[in-house]
Amino acid sequence: MASLDDPTPSTIDDPVYRTGVLELLGLLAYGEISACERLAEDAKMAPDLRNKVEIAAMATAEFGHFEKLRDHLVAMGEDPFEVMLPFAATFERFHRQTRPSDWLEGLVKAYVGDGLAADFYREIAAYLDADTRELVLDTLSGTGHSDFVIDAIRGAIDDDHRVGGRLALWGRRLMGEALSQAQMVVAERDALSTVLVGGVDHPGMDLAGIGRMFTRLTEAHAARMDKLGLAA
Amino acid sequence: MASLDDPTPSTIDDPVYRTGVLELLGLLAYGEISACERLAEDAKMAPDLRNKVEIAAMATAEFGHFEKLRDHLVAMGEDPFEVMLPFAATFERFHRQTRPSDWLEGLVKAYVGDGLAADFYREIAAYLDADTRELVLDTLSGTGHSDFVIDAIRGAIDDDHRVGGRLALWGRRLMGEALSQAQMVVAERDALSTVLVGGVDHPGMDLAGIGRMFTRLTEAHAARMDKLGLAA
Repeated sequence: MASLDDPTPSTIDDPVYRTGVLELLGLLAYGEISACERLAEDAKMAPDLRNKVEIAAMATAEFGHFEKLRDHLVAMGEDPFEVMLPFAATFERFHRQTRPSDWLEGLVKAYVGDGLAADFYREIAAYLDADTRELVLDTLSGTGHSDFVIDAIRGAIDDDHRVGGRLALWGRRLMGEALSQAQMVVAERDALSTVLVGGVDHPGMDLAGIGRMFTRLTEAHAARMDKLGLAA
Repeated sequence: MASLDDPTPSTIDDPVYRTGVLELLGLLAYGEISACERLAEDAKMAPDLRNKVEIAAMATAEFGHFEKLRDHLVAMGEDPFEVMLPFAATFERFHRQTRPSDWLEGLVKAYVGDGLAADFYREIAAYLDADTRELVLDTLSGTGHSDFVIDAIRGAIDDDHRVGGRLALWGRRLMGEALSQAQMVVAERDALSTVLVGGVDHPGMDLAGIGRMFTRLTEAHAARMDKLGLAA
């Protein structure tokens, strides 16, 4: 791991770093296409056309993110689908274990997932080379379709206070599943974790830094739950 | 109906014409959002990620069309969802009666539907005021994601010639259902048909013209089926 005196950023010419970046982009790209697919599925539970369109707009934004990541992978000379496929199982498992049972659960999942993904993108951006960082931050900047969720969830809790307790549990379960899948991905992928924790020749987070990152992600999640009127 | 000597185009200030335009835009907007929804549903049958992404790209393009139509309706001071809702039954009926039973039927439906919609947009554009015409042509210009369908269908027929017969029947059924729904919509909506056939103070198609339009749409459909390697 590089010392603080020598924070030379990695370059994409370093083969281990390059592999790690490819894994990261494959992970993000599969995450986007899979979010797009699940949102489209959840849109079917929408109580009316207006709500359906709001969710479809989020799905479309995720697809736009996917396209940016895919085009970048193509520009790197890679087959984006080959790079993405290793992450299929992770996301299929996550979505299978967090299938919303109704429209409100779908909204909370969309909102929590969107926010968590944006936070994660922002956190990792600092450890990437300039090109990849720009891509990741650019991908991130397209989110923010989910504000309508706040009104919908708060309105549902006003109508029936028991909804708040059920959705608070649901939010905790979503966060727990997300963290557990994230841990598995990192544990299975040396190059990917090297991008985050640093390798012999480039700086990264140390273990305490990773701990602090998880604390920040968890705190931001709690703040989002609070905005929805839900206990984290 | 205006004589050919006085082809003054209608203006949106004419209340009957305005109602007809609103109905037309509501019809198109519901068609787009409903196509987006069905494509997202059909994407689940995709044999692999690459094909899933191709269909998702078409769904996203339809959503982009919807957004343009919606924004235009908002700019006209209308609630887009109220304008769209009367056409829900038509599209739900169409999609219920043309539910693809497999991936290939889904592809043919996407291709045929995309092409037919584009042809119809182009046909009606001539009878609209300048603003609405620009919107309709602009909406149209975003399609064209469906070329990958040609290779997929031709490849499937090469693999198994019986597929061609089944999909040719399917294409005829799609066109039959589309025309029958279109006829019902026009029959039920006086203002909408006035936009097409013309009113006392603005030109439109005469009945022979409408007949010729249907002939052109049918011929273009046959050409598309031929591109797919299917008998129309």
